[in-house]
Amino acid sequence: MALETERTTTGWAARDASGILSPYTYSLRNTGPEDVYVKVLCCGVCHSDIHQIKNDLGMSNYPMVPGHEVVGEVVEVGSTVTKFKVGDTVGVGVLVGCCRNCRPCKADIEQYCNKKIWSYNDVYTDGKPTQGGFAGAMVVDQKFVVKIPEGMAPEQAAPLLCAGLTVYSPLSHFGLTQRGLRGGILGIGGVGHMGVKIAKAMGHHVTVISSSEKKREEAMEHLGADEYVVSSDSSRMQEAADSLDYIIDTVPVFHPLEPYLSLLKLDGKLILMGVINTPLQFLTPVVMLGRKSITGSFIGSMKETEEMLEFCKEKGLSSMIEVVKMDYVNKALERLEKNDVRYRFVVDVAGSKLDQ
Amino acid sequence: MALETERTTTGWAARDASGILSPYTYSLRNTGPEDVYVKVLCCGVCHSDIHQIKNDLGMSNYPMVPGHEVVGEVVEVGSTVTKFKVGDTVGVGVLVGCCRNCRPCKADIEQYCNKKIWSYNDVYTDGKPTQGGFAGAMVVDQKFVVKIPEGMAPEQAAPLLCAGLTVYSPLSHFGLTQRGLRGGILGIGGVGHMGVKIAKAMGHHVTVISSSEKKREEAMEHLGADEYVVSSDSSRMQEAADSLDYIIDTVPVFHPLEPYLSLLKLDGKLILMGVINTPLQFLTPVVMLGRKSITGSFIGSMKETEEMLEFCKEKGLSSMIEVVKMDYVNKALERLEKNDVRYRFVVDVAGSKLDQ
Repeated sequence: MALETERTTTGWAARDASGILSPYTYSLRNTGPEDVYVKVLCCGVCHSDIHQIKNDLGMSNYPMVPGHEVVGEVVEVGSTVTKFKVGDTVGVGVLVGCCRNCRPCKADIEQYCNKKIWSYNDVYTDGKPTQGGFAGAMVVDQKFVVKIPEGMAPEQAAPLLCAGLTVYSPLSHFGLTQRGLRGGILGIGGVGHMGVKIAKAMGHHVTVISSSEKKREEAMEHLGADEYVVSSDSSRMQEAADSLDYIIDTVPVFHPLEPYLSLLKLDGKLILMGVINTPLQFLTPVVMLGRKSITGSFIGSMKETEEMLEFCKEKGLSSMIEVVKMDYVNKALERLEKNDVRYRFVVDVAGSKLDQ
Repeated sequence: MALETERTTTGWAARDASGILSPYTYSLRNTGPEDVYVKVLCCGVCHSDIHQIKNDLGMSNYPMVPGHEVVGEVVEVGSTVTKFKVGDTVGVGVLVGCCRNCRPCKADIEQYCNKKIWSYNDVYTDGKPTQGGFAGAMVVDQKFVVKIPEGMAPEQAAPLLCAGLTVYSPLSHFGLTQRGLRGGILGIGGVGHMGVKIAKAMGHHVTVISSSEKKREEAMEHLGADEYVVSSDSSRMQEAADSLDYIIDTVPVFHPLEPYLSLLKLDGKLILMGVINTPLQFLTPVVMLGRKSITGSFIGSMKETEEMLEFCKEKGLSSMIEVVKMDYVNKALERLEKNDVRYRFVVDVAGSKLDQ
């Protein structure tokens, strides 16, 4: 009997809370009946990767290969996999597992399952750590793999799998997809820029709300926003009062909510996207007297991922990205932390040498 | 030509921020084409009456006759009034005017009109101050008058016109009326007790959440709640986590929102009813990871008032009240301020001598 050779791949892993990534070779499980073996083509860099590699949430395990905006090519499929075939271009996002039995799982909103398994920094059902997309390959349960539509470039698709989905899901869930709505996007980073693009593609009138004048030209000319309001300009803020159906709030640090709640129309929704460790504050009359809602959501479901990719393909929507090689990833993370990127880094994994 | 005699009525008015009420005689306008002249039978005492008479919001004008849960008998109707006839038992609530042209007015949610006119402590279209229901009579535009269903006692109906409506409107608007839902009522005062009654009548499983054990027996036995949880009992709060479709939060002072947000299921709603001058606080992950909403609403529309009264009649729902005469009203306000009432005072106006 021949000894079975263990399959390995090389990724770039953080070894400690310094968060510096370096080559790391580890084993991949065999392709199970429900699994898809994916050769990674490229992977977006999300701000939450920084939180994870630096142990900002105190729950990090090392070595940790981050990356959850993964586009790859199918190399092998499990015996019961019918949705995918070798050679398909596919995507993998923030999650790779769920319980399949709870209320959210049964309602196809598995992102709210209490037993969801994260793409990296989590433990898979086989007891092994999960590792993300800054690596040569991943083995992923077919439920968490999505087909990238024909004709969509892999590096264009990558940021859609987290940033795009995070914006698309609440607009879809809260019934905010019809043409003619007036939306606000608070903060223009990776998620905010997708917010402007997706809202515009839905036919909304989009107001970008920012703390400074810095991004006015970009927002209006490159992203196609309709209006740009600086939050400290009280006369413009007053003019814009009572005008928006929703605001997507991507600000990841403490900020007062009243000024933005005031911009909402009756029944308007403030949709929070930023995980913030400091409590946010608001006055109850501002909410009650306009029947406004403060809400939020967490990425999106696999079903919404498919819908969102189809929507983006149909609308010809492209993300604005800076493509880099893996040996630039530490510099990219450093620049991302300073918000010095227009608007998303995508690592060209297949075009990089991973083992040096 | 005979001099037209001015029509007057006597009410009980606050003269200054001491908030002490005493007899006050003032003129009533003639019954215009759209007006209904109502002889007041009884009037509920609401906590916001105290805020108004004591100038807690800094916007009070004196003399001020409070009272906005008014039930009366129609004495005269204007020439174009067809909805009401002399002898009808009718109700008047928190508002007596609106612009009729704005988006909320056109959508029959005139309570969100920016030009709404309050039943008292406001200025009517004729330039005269509005005065409330602790008085012999009121003249009210027919749009803001509602028929009390046959067979409903006036003193039973009175608390429905503000407290009942305040609870019914958000449950109706947010789609929370179907049988089998699990609701929480936070705080058991005038609004909270109607919350338990209305939610039970809708067929909900109702959990009362309170800061102490004091009201357990009342809540369970008199009001018919299904469960009673003391918010400081962390093991019971943990057991109740992720179990409620909505919480009606009637607490009128600062309180942390996390413990209650944690009780909500995925997509659950925390509905605020209390006007609080201190900002409330919450952590964004608690909202985002369960797609929960913090929202609120303000009384309800005239259309919802009609629906709510029909609903209460059909369900045989009764409020729990303590009926008093007008000469007890100052004492009643004092006791209400200490929360010493089970659960609403109603002044028997028609049975009181108003001018002494």
